[in-house]
Amino acid sequence: MGDAGSGTGGSVTKVNLSEKFDLFSEAWTPKIVGDMNGMHVKLAKFRGDFDWHSHENEDEMFLVTKGTMRIAFRDRVETVETGEFIIVPRGVEHRPGAVGGEYHVMLLEPQSTVNTGDNADSALTVTELDRI
Amino acid sequence: MGDAGSGTGGSVTKVNLSEKFDLFSEAWTPKIVGDMNGMHVKLAKFRGDFDWHSHENEDEMFLVTKGTMRIAFRDRVETVETGEFIIVPRGVEHRPGAVGGEYHVMLLEPQSTVNTGDNADSALTVTELDRI
Repeated sequence: MGDAGSGTGGSVTKVNLSEKFDLFSEAWTPKIVGDMNGMHVKLAKFRGDFDWHSHENEDEMFLVTKGTMRIAFRDRVETVETGEFIIVPRGVEHRPGAVGGEYHVMLLEPQSTVNTGDNADSALTVTELDRI
Repeated sequence: MGDAGSGTGGSVTKVNLSEKFDLFSEAWTPKIVGDMNGMHVKLAKFRGDFDWHSHENEDEMFLVTKGTMRIAFRDRVETVETGEFIIVPRGVEHRPGAVGGEYHVMLLEPQSTVNTGDNADSALTVTELDRI
């Protein structure tokens, strides 16, 4: 198992989230763990503040699996606890940030998504994602 | 929060999984809790055995949030524990089943997905899903 196939006429993928999170420690570098319907399932560890950005054509879903995520919008800040998810529609500016310490997130977003969105010149931009 | 907008130019959706699961008890009736990129995010409680089926055009993702899911394929059975997910590619016959007791699942699948797939005459088919 753990075969991260295309998800389209491919093979079944089974993933244990904790085992996958144990495979890496760096922040802000999403790892691909599955594919479905033209989307990637990614795991990421977040620490500190990310850059402001939006995605022109992609809705993004963040499910917090450990810790607490703070995510700023232009008009407010939302706190997303472990066991909660938030969907950020395309076009909405956002900035994931820290609430003291690290938090872990399962991300669902189209395969075309760049982590820093319209802010693709950011030092935080990652274009070649690992598959674990 | 909890606004289940279209996810496309819509508003931000934030969901606490436990709170949503507390809102219903019936098995095999997925509830829509979010939308993104033409997909639904659904929550479901599963008890006992479902019907054999496949989905012609939809890959399906099941994240187990409570209990243990058993899912049969024509050549084997997989067990998916809490904190694990499984992606069933389009066209692959499968039958979710029980391992003694209830389990809770977050489902991600295209909005076009019918729960019983090509077995749409099943007594278990649900075509009008609630949004909670």
